Amino acid sequence: MPVGTAGTSPPRGFPDSEFEGRLERAQALMSQHGLAALLLTTEVELRYFSGFLTQFWQSPTRPWFLVVPLAGKPVAVIPEIGAEAMARTWVEDIRTWSSPHPSDDGVTLLAAALSELAGAGGRIGLAMARETHLRMPLGDFERLRQALPTAEFADSTAILCRLRQVKSEREITKIAHVCALVSDAFANAAQLFHQGQSEIEAFRAFKMECLRRGVDDVPYLVGGAGPGGYGDIISPPWERPLAVGDVLILDTGSIYDGYFCDFDRNFAFAQADDEVRRAYDVAYLATEAGLKAARPGATCADLFRAMQAVLEVGGALGNDVGRLGHGLGSQLTEWPSHTAWDETQLEPGMVLTLEPGMSFAPGRVMVHEENIVIRESGPELLTRRAPPELPIIG
Amino acid sequence: MPVGTAGTSPPRGFPDSEFEGRLERAQALMSQHGLAALLLTTEVELRYFSGFLTQFWQSPTRPWFLVVPLAGKPVAVIPEIGAEAMARTWVEDIRTWSSPHPSDDGVTLLAAALSELAGAGGRIGLAMARETHLRMPLGDFERLRQALPTAEFADSTAILCRLRQVKSEREITKIAHVCALVSDAFANAAQLFHQGQSEIEAFRAFKMECLRRGVDDVPYLVGGAGPGGYGDIISPPWERPLAVGDVLILDTGSIYDGYFCDFDRNFAFAQADDEVRRAYDVAYLATEAGLKAARPGATCADLFRAMQAVLEVGGALGNDVGRLGHGLGSQLTEWPSHTAWDETQLEPGMVLTLEPGMSFAPGRVMVHEENIVIRESGPELLTRRAPPELPIIG
Repeated sequence: MPVGTAGTSPPRGFPDSEFEGRLERAQALMSQHGLAALLLTTEVELRYFSGFLTQFWQSPTRPWFLVVPLAGKPVAVIPEIGAEAMARTWVEDIRTWSSPHPSDDGVTLLAAALSELAGAGGRIGLAMARETHLRMPLGDFERLRQALPTAEFADSTAILCRLRQVKSEREITKIAHVCALVSDAFANAAQLFHQGQSEIEAFRAFKMECLRRGVDDVPYLVGGAGPGGYGDIISPPWERPLAVGDVLILDTGSIYDGYFCDFDRNFAFAQADDEVRRAYDVAYLATEAGLKAARPGATCADLFRAMQAVLEVGGALGNDVGRLGHGLGSQLTEWPSHTAWDETQLEPGMVLTLEPGMSFAPGRVMVHEENIVIRESGPELLTRRAPPELPIIG
Repeated sequence: MPVGTAGTSPPRGFPDSEFEGRLERAQALMSQHGLAALLLTTEVELRYFSGFLTQFWQSPTRPWFLVVPLAGKPVAVIPEIGAEAMARTWVEDIRTWSSPHPSDDGVTLLAAALSELAGAGGRIGLAMARETHLRMPLGDFERLRQALPTAEFADSTAILCRLRQVKSEREITKIAHVCALVSDAFANAAQLFHQGQSEIEAFRAFKMECLRRGVDDVPYLVGGAGPGGYGDIISPPWERPLAVGDVLILDTGSIYDGYFCDFDRNFAFAQADDEVRRAYDVAYLATEAGLKAARPGATCADLFRAMQAVLEVGGALGNDVGRLGHGLGSQLTEWPSHTAWDETQLEPGMVLTLEPGMSFAPGRVMVHEENIVIRESGPELLTRRAPPELPIIG
């Protein structure tokens, strides 16, 4: 069914060696940080260490846990409903309870597992910092702490960030594939979008095009259109019909086998005023500056400054996004952030967005976005580069 | 673009009166529970009180907060990137910071808002119990507690559950619409699914059909197929081709304007053995028993027992789902749960799934699911009832 230039779909899932490598690196970092175990509660954390892939996380009813010990394979402490699917992963020790439960939704079972795997008084790593949250009821976490009075919970965000920030070639192949599929879909824009079509219809047509080309899902598609420019890039589409002089942006996180692309494209309908053409050029050049700066050893702050300098010279009135790009992979956005203060050093294997954006007139914004992987020799584009001039449809 | 029997799309969004009603009911409950404010951090909580609808929640980078005071309208404390979209809701007091922030991602701003709105020592309601989580870094929550040393955080789950469990007619209309669209899509199964097609292709065809008929997104589509039955209902589709004798289940949470359906359908390819036909009949009859029991004044436990009795007589070997249905609305699954221990009384306006399921042979499961709204006179089906006998395709 997939069509276009994206090529053969990469194999789904990973060989066990992928998870063995992740575990080995995790345990080395845990040892350095003096952690006896990691407690994981979110979709992306569990998937990273187990390969457990399901949309069932849409349901907030049941908590799911994975414990990574200092030695040995991860142990799953999960609702019974997930036992069969988890048994198909490389995880062997799967402990289940019937969930939802009237009074004890896994807390006692989890406390026993942590006590066994981390020992009494063991330091347990839990993600507590930037871009993380705890996916279990806060009351149950308090109960867990009471059940483990001598355990210490320590922030493990730095470890998870360190591990996930650098992708394996298998991960990069999946991201590259979804980037190629969606690049093909955007290349078909003139057939998909037309004047008189509502934004809602345009977005629906684009989602169907992405699916037809082989993406698994389009969990993220935001943007919109406005005369001479759009004012906001996180809103859902409206019923307003696309009209002559509109500038339309679509920003999508589509996925293949659990891995995201995250990039956007801009289009004008029939005509575009000089101001928006110029803003497009500036954002395009800012991306070029980002590409030039994106080499191993440079920092995210370097990337930020390279892009920001072009935006400022180009007349940016401001930017309310708070950054000019970020990591991506098994989430739409991941650490690091291209800001003036993020000193993360770029390394081969990091997959990043370059996302220069600015207000160029009151209520009018221009944002570009491309996805790259850092190689020894510099950046490799995963998305097909946006055209150097604002494309006109119709 | 929408086709089929689903009828006109209901209007998007809500008039302010919808939010005024929600706020008024919330403040009455807050007063009863002695709460000076509610602190909300999740997508569905913010949307319930503000109407703020965006897929931007896919990005874990930034925390978002809404504070509901005991008197007056909700106050948003959000990243700058959301200011324009939030300003289009009925919320007026919008306080923003540039996020991501190097050291203080909204904590100081939120502490000031809570201090102002709840007073020093005021009790602040926060969801801490069943089916909830805190969507902000745990470390930032600790910092918030330190910034508000005299404030008390109290569990507000019961209030949020009480409010959200009973839907307004406007909400019911949106859920009914997406149920009708997806019922139409399922009615087209014989055109969508065929032998030799991989599960992945079948699922993709179904997503595109749902979109074509007018759903906004298909965030949840799980299930699979197996000879004589499937073994698991939360997995993504596989590359395995559909074959004669397979039983296929698709279980979807599709959405329209932020409101979900959640139901499934079963199909056999070319032929079905007696055992699986019988399991289908039993699950169908269990749903009938659920429909008969689903009247105001009955409890979720009554619903559970009515369905479970049929499943047991029908030879159920067990059920690892842990319940036989649940609430739904702005989430795929919401309180309450049809379990032996959930004594929630059914009330007019509650939207529920009936989801009887069982293992009928080792590794073979049968699950049915319908969506209903409770009316004074009894249940009203929102989904088009599944056929009484296992449908055969091809």
